[in-house]
Amino acid sequence: MKKNIVCFCMSVLFVIITNGQVVSSPNNQLKLNFQVEAEGVPYYSLNYKDKTIIKESQLGFVLKPSYSYFSEFKVEGIDYSTSNKSWSPVWGSNKEIVDHYNEMLVHLVQNKTGWKLDIRFRLFDDGLGFRYEFPVQKDLRHFTISSEKTSFNLGKDYKAFWIPADYDTNEFPITTSNLSEISKLIDDVRKEPLAAKAPSATLAVQAPLMLKSKDGIYINIHEAALTNFPAMTLNVDEKNFILSSNLTPDKNGDRGFVQTGSVSPWRTMIISNDARKILSSNLIVNLNEPSKIEDTSWIKPTKYIGVWWEYFTGGGSTWAYSDDQDIRIGQTDYGTLKPNGRHGANTRHVKEYIDFASENGFDAVLVEGWNEGWEDNQAYRKEHIYSFTKAYPDFDVKELQAYAKSKNVKIIMHHETTSSAIDYERQLKEAFQFMKDNGYSAVKTGYVGPIIPRSEYHDSQWMVNHYTYVAETAAKYHIMVNSHEAVRPTGLYRTYPNWIAQESARGTEFESFNGNRPDHTTILPFTRLIGGPMDYTPGIFEGDLSVYGTNKARLSTTLAKQLALYVTMYSPLQMAADLIDNYKKYPDAFQFIKDVAVDWDSSYILEAEPGDYITIARKAKNKEEWFVGSITDENSREATVDLSFLPKGQKFEAVIYKDGKDASWNHNPKSYEISRQNVKSNTKLKIKVAPGGGFAISIKS
Amino acid sequence: MKKNIVCFCMSVLFVIITNGQVVSSPNNQLKLNFQVEAEGVPYYSLNYKDKTIIKESQLGFVLKPSYSYFSEFKVEGIDYSTSNKSWSPVWGSNKEIVDHYNEMLVHLVQNKTGWKLDIRFRLFDDGLGFRYEFPVQKDLRHFTISSEKTSFNLGKDYKAFWIPADYDTNEFPITTSNLSEISKLIDDVRKEPLAAKAPSATLAVQAPLMLKSKDGIYINIHEAALTNFPAMTLNVDEKNFILSSNLTPDKNGDRGFVQTGSVSPWRTMIISNDARKILSSNLIVNLNEPSKIEDTSWIKPTKYIGVWWEYFTGGGSTWAYSDDQDIRIGQTDYGTLKPNGRHGANTRHVKEYIDFASENGFDAVLVEGWNEGWEDNQAYRKEHIYSFTKAYPDFDVKELQAYAKSKNVKIIMHHETTSSAIDYERQLKEAFQFMKDNGYSAVKTGYVGPIIPRSEYHDSQWMVNHYTYVAETAAKYHIMVNSHEAVRPTGLYRTYPNWIAQESARGTEFESFNGNRPDHTTILPFTRLIGGPMDYTPGIFEGDLSVYGTNKARLSTTLAKQLALYVTMYSPLQMAADLIDNYKKYPDAFQFIKDVAVDWDSSYILEAEPGDYITIARKAKNKEEWFVGSITDENSREATVDLSFLPKGQKFEAVIYKDGKDASWNHNPKSYEISRQNVKSNTKLKIKVAPGGGFAISIKS
Repeated sequence: MKKNIVCFCMSVLFVIITNGQVVSSPNNQLKLNFQVEAEGVPYYSLNYKDKTIIKESQLGFVLKPSYSYFSEFKVEGIDYSTSNKSWSPVWGSNKEIVDHYNEMLVHLVQNKTGWKLDIRFRLFDDGLGFRYEFPVQKDLRHFTISSEKTSFNLGKDYKAFWIPADYDTNEFPITTSNLSEISKLIDDVRKEPLAAKAPSATLAVQAPLMLKSKDGIYINIHEAALTNFPAMTLNVDEKNFILSSNLTPDKNGDRGFVQTGSVSPWRTMIISNDARKILSSNLIVNLNEPSKIEDTSWIKPTKYIGVWWEYFTGGGSTWAYSDDQDIRIGQTDYGTLKPNGRHGANTRHVKEYIDFASENGFDAVLVEGWNEGWEDNQAYRKEHIYSFTKAYPDFDVKELQAYAKSKNVKIIMHHETTSSAIDYERQLKEAFQFMKDNGYSAVKTGYVGPIIPRSEYHDSQWMVNHYTYVAETAAKYHIMVNSHEAVRPTGLYRTYPNWIAQESARGTEFESFNGNRPDHTTILPFTRLIGGPMDYTPGIFEGDLSVYGTNKARLSTTLAKQLALYVTMYSPLQMAADLIDNYKKYPDAFQFIKDVAVDWDSSYILEAEPGDYITIARKAKNKEEWFVGSITDENSREATVDLSFLPKGQKFEAVIYKDGKDASWNHNPKSYEISRQNVKSNTKLKIKVAPGGGFAISIKS
Repeated sequence: MKKNIVCFCMSVLFVIITNGQVVSSPNNQLKLNFQVEAEGVPYYSLNYKDKTIIKESQLGFVLKPSYSYFSEFKVEGIDYSTSNKSWSPVWGSNKEIVDHYNEMLVHLVQNKTGWKLDIRFRLFDDGLGFRYEFPVQKDLRHFTISSEKTSFNLGKDYKAFWIPADYDTNEFPITTSNLSEISKLIDDVRKEPLAAKAPSATLAVQAPLMLKSKDGIYINIHEAALTNFPAMTLNVDEKNFILSSNLTPDKNGDRGFVQTGSVSPWRTMIISNDARKILSSNLIVNLNEPSKIEDTSWIKPTKYIGVWWEYFTGGGSTWAYSDDQDIRIGQTDYGTLKPNGRHGANTRHVKEYIDFASENGFDAVLVEGWNEGWEDNQAYRKEHIYSFTKAYPDFDVKELQAYAKSKNVKIIMHHETTSSAIDYERQLKEAFQFMKDNGYSAVKTGYVGPIIPRSEYHDSQWMVNHYTYVAETAAKYHIMVNSHEAVRPTGLYRTYPNWIAQESARGTEFESFNGNRPDHTTILPFTRLIGGPMDYTPGIFEGDLSVYGTNKARLSTTLAKQLALYVTMYSPLQMAADLIDNYKKYPDAFQFIKDVAVDWDSSYILEAEPGDYITIARKAKNKEEWFVGSITDENSREATVDLSFLPKGQKFEAVIYKDGKDASWNHNPKSYEISRQNVKSNTKLKIKVAPGGGFAISIKS
């Protein structure tokens, strides 16, 4: 749906321009200055409300082996344009998205080599995106990137919400510190035990990086539309407060293979003095290409349960069918293996989940551990670990599919690859055909451990292409993809709306290992979620894992906060992650999970401060129903819920699920209260939130 | 067809044995001694006719990071057995192959770790094969090899026919020198310009390595049944004359990923005091597993011509359709590209080849340059270079297929990958389905340039698995494979008889670049061909390439020698590589190529000396027809052809195609004479061979 388009272009081609060129955001609050300085090096700087927020910052690349693609440039021409459109996503936190920007496209040419380089800047009201474009040209067709020169010269210290730059994982806990303190803290954070780690050799952090200045300016730095390029991490110059792009190399040290006629991902900065504007920004998704999938009718936001958490509780349930680890896919005859008797994904047990899903209005049941190979799943040097078309003897694909269908429930496929991406590609089409033949329409993919091909990291160019290839191929089979341990998202869900969610951060599963901090989910929406929805898998009611056995882990939230996450952690794919029995124990609280929508007409960021609190309201898609979620960190607070988003004059009933008076995440997490009250658009609710707590509200007429 | 089986086993399990264990070949000429020496290191030595030919030589591995898997062993048991069978290959130089050996299987256990290692030795009358077996065991399931300790302690200098150890290519010219001279010569040889090179860091040569001692003992060292393991090259200790295994690493330096329950390839030594016995040995193919393909009726030895040599002559014909190199597969619209007017694989031209093939009894026409992508085919960092399902606009797949079928000729598919094996795998099944849909039943694959995945070399484990995967997958589509630039063969054509030929050496194409030496084809059967048939592409009649344009290259053989190669270079896939016009100029010589068989009942190695000469006779499969080929190096000689292989008492007519009196490779290569004479089994022909010359004989009743 296009609302209006205004586009005028002033082409200044073939005119030599060396002094600064300026372009502003439509609201005039952001001003970008571009200029080519001494020795032909291109720089940009950025003003926000007439203050310099990004000082002169370098642009360009070094090509392999050591060719400058950042100096000796002159400006060959500049094109200006503006655009104001709106579009409707297949799913999302809002049913319509405005894409309004002013653009400056700079054409550079290098004196000696004649190599051309274009840089396209887009100024939105809430930030800047720019990308490199490599035009088709006579003397440059293929090149290898040694390093990217792009920098973000902050010029002063900022508070940062960061995880260490790592080419293999995004699963570190998030640290809050000044930029100047990162070097002191980073080594300790890197000690976190994770299945695959490949730390950057430099002092560097992962994007999206959330920053806050002492004077209250929020800057989020990330990238958009990451395709056919390595993911960007950010080097930290802690003396001069300059961040700079540190592309993920492959293991040969190459940082991108480029054919001219292509473009880099966008480098993005979302900027505001109001943290809520960071959360409501559509800058990144706007910088992605429209959907490549024409018929999207088969893509459905999904609420699901699954045979999953029981593998983490310490209760003994296993992905593996047998304890015999001597497995060779295609050779091992599972019919002759001794079952271990603790295999989670067995037909009878899955039917219990299907029954519960059906009775409680869930769309789907995820089943992990259904397929051959899990016995040897931690053999990271093994290439052919799993079959994606062969079920365990006690998992009856046909019977379960028929049963699920009769109950109007879908089963979600699981493809853990243990990062043998190369073997996954060999099996991919048969795997998807198997899914199609058996009625599956969504897959959770997993990339635990180091990558095969062994030249690659999770975030190197080849793997970036792999994830996209999987999403594109899945679309051909009408399959939705929820990728875990993949590269962090960059808004590509616009282009591939079947790529319905990702993990790519420290999710709920860590609550069963080393834990998440109480402030964790107050930061994630400002970091990881900036790129796209996360399959965080909330809904854990029983937070004390010692009830299952020897696992001493305890959740870092109250039960009420678990409910709030369904609203604060936007995703069109939401899991109710806990065991069925726990939901049966708390049917009144469970009601909120049953009720909450997973697709939305509108979203309202009511309160937000990274690391402290978030309060969000959303209107369900095509329904007169609203849901509110509010969370806090380890500190108690009073939230204000301004209901002015409700239609004026009408009366509604709000059901409020909040922390009990004595609740706190570490002493009494399961204390909650449910109350009902009438509300109108002029209602302002004041609600107490416990330490590590939260609340959820559903509102209907 | 099993002739007779004698197998008895003496199990000596659980007995501690430390003194030497001996096993002999069935004819008793070879004796292997195995023992575990001080510090538990296993050694073997080998006697030939009561002389020590391999002195005490170490066995074992180092595992990553630096675990000994070669010391602290004790013998836990030894099994002896013997086997005498015969079997019939799907195609071959003989219709029946005897597999007769004595075997010793040594069970080792490491004192501290409890790790087990088995070594299986097989003594044949003509040599030794041994392999490592990694039993399923409690404390070792997956390991990474740092290095292999296997050595071949020759104890004295040998004459060697060698090419440098290189993980990416086998296309060096072959050097003849003493082992002690290699270090002086190798750097110069390595300067040879080749599309991909990855020289071993150590002084090392490629297997198969042909050796000859001063006292006339021939030893060929190679490996058999190379699957799921890196290819072996041979380190040369030029002081002590010890060769040792140098496995092809990946680019991370890892030399093999192993799961217990598997085996290494066989390390092989073919040994004789008669060079002819080296050529007639079936040791390597016997050490491979029987065919995994049950129905082999679709596998057909093939004689073919092709749109190929014209790309090498300098005559201007191109693989590419256009001179525009800015190609993106799936995006570039070839309909709008400007054709260069020199594209070889156009419908009209291919029809000329089909006509010629049909008129002259060829089975097939190879067409290179039929598919999108060749414009950018040297972009070695590009992953998606070609489409394997999209033909150029001027190559009409359907029309050509119908035309070829009407003429009873097959078209051979070509899949050059430019070594983007990873992209080939993505397209593989569609590519084979496309072939099946369009009546193709054989493919020539190509791996020019460095490998993608970028962690790999042509000969590293992953690529070894890739080639096998391609052959296995092709078999499912009833497709024969002729792989070029792949890892050298190790007899796997027994297991995958659809893997009908390979290049993996310096073939005829080099005659159009830097040339092959006159002795080249007198050595190849002792080196490269020891592992399996080669698609050498002989039959070049016009050896002076200056007739086509500016290429000054000249063939290193006489025309008659080109005919002889159809017999001396065994392959079930034989090309007549020259241009049609050249065959039309010499119809009498061409008659031999038309007549010569490509599959055989029996082969007779009549004369052989590596680097000097080879004379071979073969009886056509299921026909009373014999063909003889004889070649020499740069020296003239008189060959003796003892026809005692003919049925006694019968008269036959021999047509002799030999060098003219004034012929020589460098002065008068096209001088030849054709004569006919009656022959019987007691005939001994004496035939003069010109410098760089040869002769061919066809014999019929």
